[in-house]
Amino acid sequence: MHQNSSEILTVGSMAFDSLRTPSGKVDHIVGGSANYFSLAASLFAPVRIVAVVGEDFPDDHLKLLQSKEINVDEVERAKGKTFHWVGEYDRNLNEAKTLSTHLNVFEHFNPKLNAASKKSPYLFLGNINPGLQMSVLDQIENPQVVALDTMNFWITGESKELQKVLKRADILSINEGEARLLSEKESIVAAARVIQKMGPSIVIIKRGEYGASLFTPDGVFILPAFPLMQVTDPTGAGDSFAGALMGYLAQSLVDRSILRNNPNEREKILRHAVLAGCVLASFTVEDFGPRKLINLTKAEYAKRLQEMKNLVAIPE
Amino acid sequence: MHQNSSEILTVGSMAFDSLRTPSGKVDHIVGGSANYFSLAASLFAPVRIVAVVGEDFPDDHLKLLQSKEINVDEVERAKGKTFHWVGEYDRNLNEAKTLSTHLNVFEHFNPKLNAASKKSPYLFLGNINPGLQMSVLDQIENPQVVALDTMNFWITGESKELQKVLKRADILSINEGEARLLSEKESIVAAARVIQKMGPSIVIIKRGEYGASLFTPDGVFILPAFPLMQVTDPTGAGDSFAGALMGYLAQSLVDRSILRNNPNEREKILRHAVLAGCVLASFTVEDFGPRKLINLTKAEYAKRLQEMKNLVAIPE
Repeated sequence: MHQNSSEILTVGSMAFDSLRTPSGKVDHIVGGSANYFSLAASLFAPVRIVAVVGEDFPDDHLKLLQSKEINVDEVERAKGKTFHWVGEYDRNLNEAKTLSTHLNVFEHFNPKLNAASKKSPYLFLGNINPGLQMSVLDQIENPQVVALDTMNFWITGESKELQKVLKRADILSINEGEARLLSEKESIVAAARVIQKMGPSIVIIKRGEYGASLFTPDGVFILPAFPLMQVTDPTGAGDSFAGALMGYLAQSLVDRSILRNNPNEREKILRHAVLAGCVLASFTVEDFGPRKLINLTKAEYAKRLQEMKNLVAIPE
Repeated sequence: MHQNSSEILTVGSMAFDSLRTPSGKVDHIVGGSANYFSLAASLFAPVRIVAVVGEDFPDDHLKLLQSKEINVDEVERAKGKTFHWVGEYDRNLNEAKTLSTHLNVFEHFNPKLNAASKKSPYLFLGNINPGLQMSVLDQIENPQVVALDTMNFWITGESKELQKVLKRADILSINEGEARLLSEKESIVAAARVIQKMGPSIVIIKRGEYGASLFTPDGVFILPAFPLMQVTDPTGAGDSFAGALMGYLAQSLVDRSILRNNPNEREKILRHAVLAGCVLASFTVEDFGPRKLINLTKAEYAKRLQEMKNLVAIPE
């Protein structure tokens, strides 16, 4: 039976990013996983953000999110400064180097969901402390699809808590290097199979400019990244990917019974969801911060989606 | 008008390889670009090798090649030792590290083709000195498809000679890092477009475990590598890829007029040729040296070809 609500709840960071790439430099632009995720997901389904910002976070940006059917009722405004990430990328744009992380208001973040949020069927646990991910998951009444992201820092530092969240997740969306670290396997096929045994039956490994690989109980799907003449800023590519992926699943009203008991339908919907993810990520990296994502139209999306399909098509 | 002969001529190295990978170590196994290329191509079309070996090269291996419709009449046996490559791969299997290269008999190699070889319509100039590539190309009477490979060493050291060969090539098959070096562009899309202006209208960029990208005058096709639980030895993957690619083109009797004037047919055949290349390369890396390639059956090939198609299929 299909879901009757397509609402997605995401918990993650709202941040200021200061970063340098070979294309240039920006200071204190609005970023954070919840921001990228929700902008991408909103192209497909309504989204709620659970996050915290400081007194310095621009009200205009929250209004902008609201104008895109993104519910920010649970974006808490706390005393102090917004989370601030400082990083850089070298010529090889696949990996970010963190120069400093100022948690600021994020340090004491401990969200209590309101009644409406608890009913969200689609849940994306952004890359935050696994204990916090679990606390949010525990508050959701009847989750249909639970997806999460994580990173090296939690894999090595909060492994026990992370394993608990993984047990209850349907989908893990993770970088290639992180998949290797989590699984202790070099081959990504072997890595995905090990991670599936930890809980999520669906593992998606993000490979930067090389695209993404989807591992389901039945098979493997590999999609390249959309080839661009220039990548300006890779920040948020993974979160935009996850946003479009979850957006597509929510729009399709996928429920737990499809994920678990309907292999054909599952495979088909997930492949299209990964496709949506790669297309959205390709827009994000074309400009600094979420600029491109904010101005993205459905027509632009549809055009590139078709180009992406042509790119991988094998004619009969 | 289609070709009436599907014979492929390749010039390249016949070698002994001594190498170490995370899976183990082998000493003086038979290798070389012409060897991998011809074994892969022979699954599709008859092949002629132009190469030189020393007195120490096993006669049995030449007999084995002959048993697979590979013509070794122009594998010259010279006084001295066979070309010997010593290398290793670390955990990241995408790039080989050369420890030493003993050119031996290869140093004075200067092939004069016989009358039959001069009539070969399909020519693959393996990764050798561009001057030598040109001398072979000059001896071919009416080439229909000219493809070549090259490497860092020639790009930096023999740039002028290489540019001359490129001007007369239809297809360049090259590694990602080499494409960047040759084009002085970071994005592979930009790199391919620059290289196309140097001569070859078709540029194929090989990306190791990430697969291959095909750039034609009309578009881009990207295919992932076949995902394997374990890669044992990447040596020869690129040459096997090129062998299957040229084999497929030869089997399809592609001629110059199709390559130049029939975009739809060209795009379709090239995509299938790249598919064949990726499938063959995936077998090569599963064992040390050309072992797996030598024993490969058409049924195994057909099975993996279908798996590969499933891997990238986007259901309607």
